[in-house]
Amino acid sequence: MINELNKIMEQAYDAFLEYQLVSGADKKGFLYAIADEIEALGDSLLETASEETNLPVARFAGERMRTCGQLRAFGDLVAEGSWVEAVIDTAIPDRKPLPKPDMRKMTIPIGPIVVFGASNFPLAYSTAGGDTASALASGCPVIVKGHPSHPRTSKLVSSAIHNALEKCRLNKNIFQHVEGDSFEIGKILTQHPLTAGVGFTGSLNGGRAIYNYAQQREVPIPVFSEMGSTNPVILLKDTLNNNAPEIAKAFSGSITMGVGQFCTNPGIMLGIKSSALNHFTSLLALELSLTPSYKMLNGSIHHNYNASLDKVLYDKGVETVYHAHATEELQASPVLARVSGTTFLLNPDLHHEVFGPFSLIVVCDNKKQLVEVWQTLKGQLTTTIMGSNQDLEEHHDLINIARNIAGRIVFNGIPTGVEVSNATVHGGQYPATTDSRFTSVGMDAIKRWVRPICWQDCPEQLLPPELKSDNPLGIFRKVNGQYQR
Amino acid sequence: MINELNKIMEQAYDAFLEYQLVSGADKKGFLYAIADEIEALGDSLLETASEETNLPVARFAGERMRTCGQLRAFGDLVAEGSWVEAVIDTAIPDRKPLPKPDMRKMTIPIGPIVVFGASNFPLAYSTAGGDTASALASGCPVIVKGHPSHPRTSKLVSSAIHNALEKCRLNKNIFQHVEGDSFEIGKILTQHPLTAGVGFTGSLNGGRAIYNYAQQREVPIPVFSEMGSTNPVILLKDTLNNNAPEIAKAFSGSITMGVGQFCTNPGIMLGIKSSALNHFTSLLALELSLTPSYKMLNGSIHHNYNASLDKVLYDKGVETVYHAHATEELQASPVLARVSGTTFLLNPDLHHEVFGPFSLIVVCDNKKQLVEVWQTLKGQLTTTIMGSNQDLEEHHDLINIARNIAGRIVFNGIPTGVEVSNATVHGGQYPATTDSRFTSVGMDAIKRWVRPICWQDCPEQLLPPELKSDNPLGIFRKVNGQYQR
Repeated sequence: MINELNKIMEQAYDAFLEYQLVSGADKKGFLYAIADEIEALGDSLLETASEETNLPVARFAGERMRTCGQLRAFGDLVAEGSWVEAVIDTAIPDRKPLPKPDMRKMTIPIGPIVVFGASNFPLAYSTAGGDTASALASGCPVIVKGHPSHPRTSKLVSSAIHNALEKCRLNKNIFQHVEGDSFEIGKILTQHPLTAGVGFTGSLNGGRAIYNYAQQREVPIPVFSEMGSTNPVILLKDTLNNNAPEIAKAFSGSITMGVGQFCTNPGIMLGIKSSALNHFTSLLALELSLTPSYKMLNGSIHHNYNASLDKVLYDKGVETVYHAHATEELQASPVLARVSGTTFLLNPDLHHEVFGPFSLIVVCDNKKQLVEVWQTLKGQLTTTIMGSNQDLEEHHDLINIARNIAGRIVFNGIPTGVEVSNATVHGGQYPATTDSRFTSVGMDAIKRWVRPICWQDCPEQLLPPELKSDNPLGIFRKVNGQYQR
Repeated sequence: MINELNKIMEQAYDAFLEYQLVSGADKKGFLYAIADEIEALGDSLLETASEETNLPVARFAGERMRTCGQLRAFGDLVAEGSWVEAVIDTAIPDRKPLPKPDMRKMTIPIGPIVVFGASNFPLAYSTAGGDTASALASGCPVIVKGHPSHPRTSKLVSSAIHNALEKCRLNKNIFQHVEGDSFEIGKILTQHPLTAGVGFTGSLNGGRAIYNYAQQREVPIPVFSEMGSTNPVILLKDTLNNNAPEIAKAFSGSITMGVGQFCTNPGIMLGIKSSALNHFTSLLALELSLTPSYKMLNGSIHHNYNASLDKVLYDKGVETVYHAHATEELQASPVLARVSGTTFLLNPDLHHEVFGPFSLIVVCDNKKQLVEVWQTLKGQLTTTIMGSNQDLEEHHDLINIARNIAGRIVFNGIPTGVEVSNATVHGGQYPATTDSRFTSVGMDAIKRWVRPICWQDCPEQLLPPELKSDNPLGIFRKVNGQYQR
């Protein structure tokens, strides 16, 4: 196995030496071709994904749209070219006491990237998902360790990428797919000297293990593990008084979306005790009771969901508000529970993510306790504030607290359904991710796979096009401190 | 000791909650005030630094200028404000199948930063040096662990920063200075739960130890250890034929600058065997012989220099070309040695940095071997190519190799004397630094202390000024994909 993985990494590195110099326009052609090839797989891809995940085919039509949209958006980004953050400071030969050299910098790709896909997004965050798309866009070859939970889907997508490589006459080792469900493969790939970075989406245990493997290397490398979170929601009084039915409906949908198997699932909801909060809780329970139970992704996730539920629901002071009755194998019951702020603060077990259609309402005695509970929670991908204008005016200080909690603050919306945009931050302090300085969704995900490099007094003809004085690519640059195109 | 350090970190965190919201204009006032206060220390600062480092007073006039220039440049950067990388994607409420939310992001400071200053730059890369200046500019409080090699200088600078805090009526715990030469202090500070990041400049052993401490934390934090490198120089034939005397003079100066105690010191020079390379070697030896021996920073560095020299010079196949005779205590002899490419490739001991006025000329059999030697070298802060236009035309492929070796590629210049500019990259692959994606010198050093955060559908009045729709700060932003002010 080691010999085979060695060969794969050597092939990836050789491919990197070529691929790092491929133009943005050509990379766009390649990324668009991948999207075309994925679409050309037709319904068989959607059906395979559905069979392997127990999620409906319709869901994969949406996920395919997201996947191909992402691929093409990264293609557009690199064809436009400004993403390399070119900065030019021209020479001042007569500066005193010393001449100022000509300094030009931009980012360049770092090398072969190992991607561990997510079980819950077999298309959008797996084989040709956000990590792969952003790494290929940056100029890094990718080695995907196929997820054992959806091997056939992964192979189909992998074949689409290989078709695209062939059509674009690119080195076939720019993308390689490794099968097998041994954890050892992940460790060897992460610790291989030719691996330059790792993208991981999954559990805290898995993500931290990969991170630790990387840090044990002689040469440390960046590891971007996105490991989910509880995505706390603050429910303020005035909005509960006025909009409880709509909010209950929206959050019932958010809690059960994808059978609760989203990393932005709202797992903890905080409010101050009041009849409005009680009323909202009843409405949310009612909405959940109208939601059928669906099957989870696999036996292991289903087992963990029930084990986590048992742990939380039988904890002292935790009251089950609603518990659906799942009858079929692998089905997950939507569950709503409630606990006092005081009990919650005393019991760190309640602070962990329960991966599935579950949420815990934390009833705080007063605003002081609500702030204390909120601040006690660890790093989060998102935090949501539900409040009318009056609520927000009265709780202005909550915004400043939100800054230090999560990567994204949602106002009067649901945290699930992450928009892929220029402004997306899908990241957050540990344990949400291992590196809160980057996002794994949205256009800036490409920044994870590059490093800056500076050319000092480089002859014009040897500069990369992004840094040539006449700006042949017409990209946006910072020249002598001024932003210009 | 632990109680005291706990208190320091708690004070730093409390200061962070205030300081993170201080405006760019006010931070500029503070950074300028630090520069003013450092200048107000007058000659006593320069004399103290000279006494503690064995370097001449004149050197510290220059280093003070760099230090104060950096502080003011970071002040200007944050007062202008565009550095936060604001990105706005406005809502599309009628988008199908789902409405597009309003997403706005920018970077925010991460929290208290622990800085370990450099022994070789007691002003510019120590107490109020690049790490401190960039962290304070970003909105992070700083805890400096004073370098035991220049305690009085560090205390003087620390007092200047405290005077500036008082003048600007800022929380005095935005900057704290910890004395003591125990390594344990560094470990406790790095592993403290309230520490958000670490800046270190020094040896590979020290920098890696700090990095490892940080990775053992429950919550990993970014560590930027800048640990020096050998800064390989490629000497091409045509330029040696035409410019050997000038090049020898420039590199003799570069090798002995600051008694060779610069992290960008050219410790390895590569060429292909020729009479031109022989002639250059003789000229360089002659230039070095005209340079007096000076005292090194401290006994430990002096001891390590001599021990490293002994190891290299008595290695099989290494020829001493020039060895000055140092007579006084702590004096370092400038030394030039020579080895064949074949021997160099077989002996990894020769690849390590020798911290002091030393360089090793590696004489390669041919271009193939030169490329092999160059590629074998580990991560570097810089790599330099000396070549005429004709040389560079004939060796076009060398530029692409240089990209994968170092953070900065210098053409026909010396690597020492790092320009502080917008385009500076003072970084590079391990072991030059622990994180090649960032620079520790230049304006982008501020990016080490921030993380992005996204506001989704945030009411206008609650947005930070950088993200408000009417752009009250007039900063540069990317709005719906377009760069604009």
